[in-house]
Amino acid sequence: MEAMRNIIQRYGHKRISLAEAGATRHRSIFNGLKALAEDQPDCKLTKPEVVIIHDAVRPFVEEDILLRVVLAAKEHGAAGAIRPLVSTVISPSADGHLDHSLDRAKHRASEMPQAFLFDVIYEAYQQCSDFDLEFGTECLQLALKYCHRKAKLVEGPPALWKVTYKQDLCAAEAMIKEKISQEICVVMNTKDEESVGHLLEEVLRKELNCMKVTSTVMDHTGGDIRNVIEQCYSFICVNVVSSDSQETRKLLRILEESSLSLLYPVVVVLVHCFDSTLVPLAQKMESLVWIRGLAKEVKERNILLSGLLLNYSQDEQKLQESLGQSAAIIAALVKERNSALVGQLLVA
Amino acid sequence: MEAMRNIIQRYGHKRISLAEAGATRHRSIFNGLKALAEDQPDCKLTKPEVVIIHDAVRPFVEEDILLRVVLAAKEHGAAGAIRPLVSTVISPSADGHLDHSLDRAKHRASEMPQAFLFDVIYEAYQQCSDFDLEFGTECLQLALKYCHRKAKLVEGPPALWKVTYKQDLCAAEAMIKEKISQEICVVMNTKDEESVGHLLEEVLRKELNCMKVTSTVMDHTGGDIRNVIEQCYSFICVNVVSSDSQETRKLLRILEESSLSLLYPVVVVLVHCFDSTLVPLAQKMESLVWIRGLAKEVKERNILLSGLLLNYSQDEQKLQESLGQSAAIIAALVKERNSALVGQLLVA
Repeated sequence: MEAMRNIIQRYGHKRISLAEAGATRHRSIFNGLKALAEDQPDCKLTKPEVVIIHDAVRPFVEEDILLRVVLAAKEHGAAGAIRPLVSTVISPSADGHLDHSLDRAKHRASEMPQAFLFDVIYEAYQQCSDFDLEFGTECLQLALKYCHRKAKLVEGPPALWKVTYKQDLCAAEAMIKEKISQEICVVMNTKDEESVGHLLEEVLRKELNCMKVTSTVMDHTGGDIRNVIEQCYSFICVNVVSSDSQETRKLLRILEESSLSLLYPVVVVLVHCFDSTLVPLAQKMESLVWIRGLAKEVKERNILLSGLLLNYSQDEQKLQESLGQSAAIIAALVKERNSALVGQLLVA
Repeated sequence: MEAMRNIIQRYGHKRISLAEAGATRHRSIFNGLKALAEDQPDCKLTKPEVVIIHDAVRPFVEEDILLRVVLAAKEHGAAGAIRPLVSTVISPSADGHLDHSLDRAKHRASEMPQAFLFDVIYEAYQQCSDFDLEFGTECLQLALKYCHRKAKLVEGPPALWKVTYKQDLCAAEAMIKEKISQEICVVMNTKDEESVGHLLEEVLRKELNCMKVTSTVMDHTGGDIRNVIEQCYSFICVNVVSSDSQETRKLLRILEESSLSLLYPVVVVLVHCFDSTLVPLAQKMESLVWIRGLAKEVKERNILLSGLLLNYSQDEQKLQESLGQSAAIIAALVKERNSALVGQLLVA
């Protein structure tokens, strides 16, 4: 309960009430329903018309399927998401041999979310036997058994899968990383930077065709950038003119003031352009060592800052090569969000 | 067929024969069995006592479960791997409502591999109706129906899961990366390097406690390192004395001569120690620019080379901090195997 209270407070949730878990799945659900029914003083919610039951182990549920099960429950009293079976289901005999196998086309996997008219599912739980509460798993079955409601079955998306085994945790992590890496914003300040910025934008768009690439010019109020922040977790800042940290600090302040990095790490890549025929790489690097210190500072606020030196050569072919390498490195930083690379000065 | 032939040639497989796929799963399996039965001139295999049927979409099958289904098939004529059901299975009515739900405890998911006495499964397929061959999915069911063999069911590991949806591809990639990142080898050349090398080894072992960390001293024949190569895909080379590329080239030659990088990318991190109070960072970096060129060269052979500068400070606390950061960066390079970071000079 303490851990859940901390989560609610940390993320500023307002309309969540907690119910104590029971020893089995069904006892936990019943406790939740009771909290809603009984108008308890510390419950912020009142008895609803329709209630949704969901598993925390299916974190990728989308609004669309929630809406569809709720509408079906309003009409039929009970509704649940289903998915095609991935493997054939069989029935073993007592001695561990095949007794018979089920026709895969005639069966479905019952998933979550499920929705019910509150009165239907509450009545079903009140009538449950101890055996149901101990050994049952299927809420739809309870609505059928005790309230004679044949649940409407609603085809759900693959994202409803249940995070169960180690490989599911790997998949969940990859899905989250992919979700927050879908948009990249190229940030520019001056006219000079706009020309490089748009070149880089173009290369990024071509190479990362699964991502949305936007760009914004940061004026002295930082106005534009605030509009992007809602849905974007990756910022590529183009610097041509100076090697100092002033513009970067302005952007970081805006990011810190938003609550963007509360849930997911925000990646910021500072792209500094230099011409290796005019300025030696080592000298340019030395002028940018401040990135290491600043990165360490903002890492505590879940902002992953690193630098990228782009050789802005006059030779068209070399420039294209450098831009291509930049895009690949940016993609790696954005997709992996690896905090071990924070403060590094990479070279394209 | 062409793609499969290329794979067989590329990886030097010797005892694989190909059979044409059919229009359905069962027709493909039947073609495979016929190729074994009929002693075809281009089939390198002869009729076996036991045959294993497996799905390519379950790439993480281990020898143990193969052995267990084969032994069970020898005894019972047919055997297959099973797993507990993750979701409840239900039977829908024709109009999309719940008809009934199945008791999860009394059912199992039928997975692969399955094994059969060759004569049993071949006879079953010869008796199959067109309907079976078109719409059936379960080989165990065919052995039961046509040869009255009740397959022995063998509990399999979670790794048998079927790579079906996008999230499964993410999981499969993460599992492979984890598998080849389990062992790190620290390579040293001289006495000086041994002292730093063992310090780094210790920190790596502490920080990456899920990985096996070994070390080896490379003599002029490179003898020791060849023994490690069989199971290790990550090499951390410690360099204290010089900034030149001679020792590195020797190691890379040994790696190239082995066929280690044929299947998976091999990560090589060159750790170069320097004391920032004696040598400026920029100067040390300049002396190591050859890493970029060399990395580009070996990348074509699937070897991912990058450099890491370790500030070998006389101050004990600073040294520990630097070693800790090195371990974190090495872990990132080893776990992600991201080719965009090839040739980079990172700083700890």
